Amino acid sequence: MRIDIITVLPELLESPLNCSILKRAQEKNLAKIVVHNLRDYSTNKHRRVDDYPFGGTAGMVMQIEPIDRAISQLKTERTYDEVIYTSPDGEPFAQRMANTLSMAENLIILCGHYKGIDYRIREHLITKEISIGDYVLTGGELAAAVMCDAIIRLIPGAIGDEQSALSDSFQDNLLAAPIYTRPAEYKGWKVPDILLSGHQRKIEEWEHEKAIERTRLRRPDLLID
Amino acid sequence: MRIDIITVLPELLESPLNCSILKRAQEKNLAKIVVHNLRDYSTNKHRRVDDYPFGGTAGMVMQIEPIDRAISQLKTERTYDEVIYTSPDGEPFAQRMANTLSMAENLIILCGHYKGIDYRIREHLITKEISIGDYVLTGGELAAAVMCDAIIRLIPGAIGDEQSALSDSFQDNLLAAPIYTRPAEYKGWKVPDILLSGHQRKIEEWEHEKAIERTRLRRPDLLID
Repeated sequence: MRIDIITVLPELLESPLNCSILKRAQEKNLAKIVVHNLRDYSTNKHRRVDDYPFGGTAGMVMQIEPIDRAISQLKTERTYDEVIYTSPDGEPFAQRMANTLSMAENLIILCGHYKGIDYRIREHLITKEISIGDYVLTGGELAAAVMCDAIIRLIPGAIGDEQSALSDSFQDNLLAAPIYTRPAEYKGWKVPDILLSGHQRKIEEWEHEKAIERTRLRRPDLLID
Repeated sequence: MRIDIITVLPELLESPLNCSILKRAQEKNLAKIVVHNLRDYSTNKHRRVDDYPFGGTAGMVMQIEPIDRAISQLKTERTYDEVIYTSPDGEPFAQRMANTLSMAENLIILCGHYKGIDYRIREHLITKEISIGDYVLTGGELAAAVMCDAIIRLIPGAIGDEQSALSDSFQDNLLAAPIYTRPAEYKGWKVPDILLSGHQRKIEEWEHEKAIERTRLRRPDLLID
């Protein structure tokens, strides 16, 4: 899969996209992430890509023209499954959406910045608006990095242990059960006896019970779905 | 405010914490973010901080001892408002929580990795578990970066235009109104006439109406709160 990210802050994405799983997935040719500096598509001699908003609201707005040029250029090169805009008022990003997007071939992610983007871009050029949560970030770059990580780790081969991903929270609409490792006792705090029993079937029952119990306590909304 | 981040992947955080608003806030001494490599607190000669889980689940688990040592060391140096663990099953991070945390003096953020951390850490050492959304990430580092950005940009002086932050989505439980900038017409796509009218009161009415309309359409749950 290929993800093209359009941003005014390419340098912010450097370390997240070149570490850990995202680095390995790219080295294994499972994913390719290409970061484009939006300023390269500006026709302004100062490479400006923003301007004051109409109507006197505070903040600056990203202009339609450079973004249209960047997206149009990419679209001449390949077909995209989605042109995504990261915005706090988009559709909430969740594990199910990550699963779906992990099967895409080509994605564009446009990172918002400043006060946001000219609304006509959202109406005419974007196919999917995604929010990673109900909070405001300085820009869409971290949202793009979060999406890349959540999506690309689901591509078969990206993480070493696929069995591990299957038992992650949300994959079965349940939170994960508590986990423990050595030592079995630390400062008087003990690992539950059942986990030390070696009785595999009982352990699995306990884990399933705990997963349901924790979900009911912390996220009952997940059980309703 | 000071934020101490404990992680096994300090290099992943390099560019997000040293760009844009987070860079400026630190240069202005409004915030200080210190990243700690958890491996520095390992007593293992290979600097290991993880081990196999009890009970045979797949994946690796971060051990209690290095984390206890790291947190205890920091606590001898200053008092912390919260010791946060980033986890998909934590309390959902939202703008209101960002507002509250922006008033803290000292925070620790522990980034989970691998399959997660020994549950005893969560029971005994963590004061607040936070999730940035209903999806699984490879590690808590991006979640920590997201929280730092959302929190620190709220500190007075961190962003140039505070008026701009006040009209962001969620600050009044409404999504932001559409915004537009020049040109007034692009490829036949026009900016709404009202915004070009110069009639400030009518513009503000229109913006408020649009904010309510968009919230009702896209996020009716925000209006119920």
